[in-house]
Amino acid sequence: MTTTDPRSGSAASDAATAGSHATESARLGRSNQRGGGSAVDQARTAKVIGAALEGIRAAIRDNKVTYDEFDAFKRWLIEVSDTGEWPLFLDVYLEFEVERVAAETQDGSTGTILGPFWLDGQAQLDSPATLPMRDDEPGTPLILAGQVRGTDGKPLAGAKVDIWHTDDEGYYSGFASKPPAGNLRGVVTANSDGRYEIHSRKPAPYTIPLDGPTGKMTETAGWSPWRPGHLHLLVSAPGHRTITTQLFFIGDRYLDSDVASATKPELILDPQPTGNGDEVRSDYDFVIESE
Amino acid sequence: MTTTDPRSGSAASDAATAGSHATESARLGRSNQRGGGSAVDQARTAKVIGAALEGIRAAIRDNKVTYDEFDAFKRWLIEVSDTGEWPLFLDVYLEFEVERVAAETQDGSTGTILGPFWLDGQAQLDSPATLPMRDDEPGTPLILAGQVRGTDGKPLAGAKVDIWHTDDEGYYSGFASKPPAGNLRGVVTANSDGRYEIHSRKPAPYTIPLDGPTGKMTETAGWSPWRPGHLHLLVSAPGHRTITTQLFFIGDRYLDSDVASATKPELILDPQPTGNGDEVRSDYDFVIESE
Repeated sequence: MTTTDPRSGSAASDAATAGSHATESARLGRSNQRGGGSAVDQARTAKVIGAALEGIRAAIRDNKVTYDEFDAFKRWLIEVSDTGEWPLFLDVYLEFEVERVAAETQDGSTGTILGPFWLDGQAQLDSPATLPMRDDEPGTPLILAGQVRGTDGKPLAGAKVDIWHTDDEGYYSGFASKPPAGNLRGVVTANSDGRYEIHSRKPAPYTIPLDGPTGKMTETAGWSPWRPGHLHLLVSAPGHRTITTQLFFIGDRYLDSDVASATKPELILDPQPTGNGDEVRSDYDFVIESE
Repeated sequence: MTTTDPRSGSAASDAATAGSHATESARLGRSNQRGGGSAVDQARTAKVIGAALEGIRAAIRDNKVTYDEFDAFKRWLIEVSDTGEWPLFLDVYLEFEVERVAAETQDGSTGTILGPFWLDGQAQLDSPATLPMRDDEPGTPLILAGQVRGTDGKPLAGAKVDIWHTDDEGYYSGFASKPPAGNLRGVVTANSDGRYEIHSRKPAPYTIPLDGPTGKMTETAGWSPWRPGHLHLLVSAPGHRTITTQLFFIGDRYLDSDVASATKPELILDPQPTGNGDEVRSDYDFVIESE
């Protein structure tokens, strides 16, 4: 088994590029694959926003926050705005709690957060598929394969596995300048037996952008800015509720300190050598419930 | 006594103009007269930001916030950014809690929040002073007069009363297009006995801007967007700790529903007729502590 070699200073993206892109997606309502339109309810808004505000006020009271600190907080919020980091900040520091709530009422495979790096309009591929990559794409060759079934155990023919992940340097295409557009992204259609097989490269751990306000706050607080290497997946089939998940790798040094709090024991792969050079393979089945 | 005639739909400013101005001030560190420079402390940052985040997470957990709601929240935060309303939102919904903490360690006159509408560089006037206003400035003529003393009871010669407030339509100069620059703003120097006398017009209640995200959220939650009419004041003297406060008016229908939670019983004026037309007068002394 090849272990991921964490590097220092790699980042998913540069703050400015990533921020503006993710903010534009959110503005258009495209950042979230799990929502289906929202209705405004007065009592609900007052209760939830009121509770969130009261939570912040309690933090002010309990810690005797000073005007200097309040002023610094104001400047920081404006910097988050200027750099377009709201999707990043929210997906790193709050989405996991929303995901836990959603998971309470979803059967089937374990999910986790979506994060801010999903993009629409990627390559449509039939299984077995190789994700779009550069001729000399670096990193350990990785095969992810398995079957998509319903909660009744029946294979779901034509299920789709939307997958996106960083390259071996921890960069996402579309959010960092180095990888070309569409690199290591694709929507793979499973065969008639619900089976899929995806050839790619093992992703690397990365830090959230350290040059932006989310990263600076994280470092100021002394929290780790690292995410363990991971594959992002949206697994869907007609008439079924899409699973949003991530798959991690055993032995990754950041499994227990994921800045986004998104790791779960069920989501850790243990890839094995295929005997084809340094290629490794993991099998992972998905179970998705009917709508 | 003349009572304020609350009007519907008046607003302190229009959202876009006010937002960008207040945001620019905050960016430059000019929004806060009570801070004196901040030092970054790792343990403190982790504790306070951690507590605030946990407060929001508890609101998500306890209310089972959905992905639709999380997505709407994300879009709302981006709209607050786009309109430059961070200073408005923070000063309306959080500053009062910071002010309460600050008040615990400040002797002298009762203070309250600063808000986002203070501006630097206003007219410097000697007491008795009439604030800059239009020839036909509408509204009830108001005299505010009193003495500035130290906590030892001694008058503070040359104390300064920095005052700013809306006009009779609820608009602030510098943040709304109607009043000219500097209207109803000034820094009045008290006389050798610490006495000051300021001639102005009684300010009107107003709503926070209803066309921006802070106002829209407030209305969606069914909360009142009104602030009672008030005078803003910064009272200072060399070697003394500046008091930031506001003075309100008895009988104002919004005293108990101030959107900014800034009213306090000690801050309510009961102006009396002077016999000069419909002019009214209130006397209010300030006590400020040594640094």
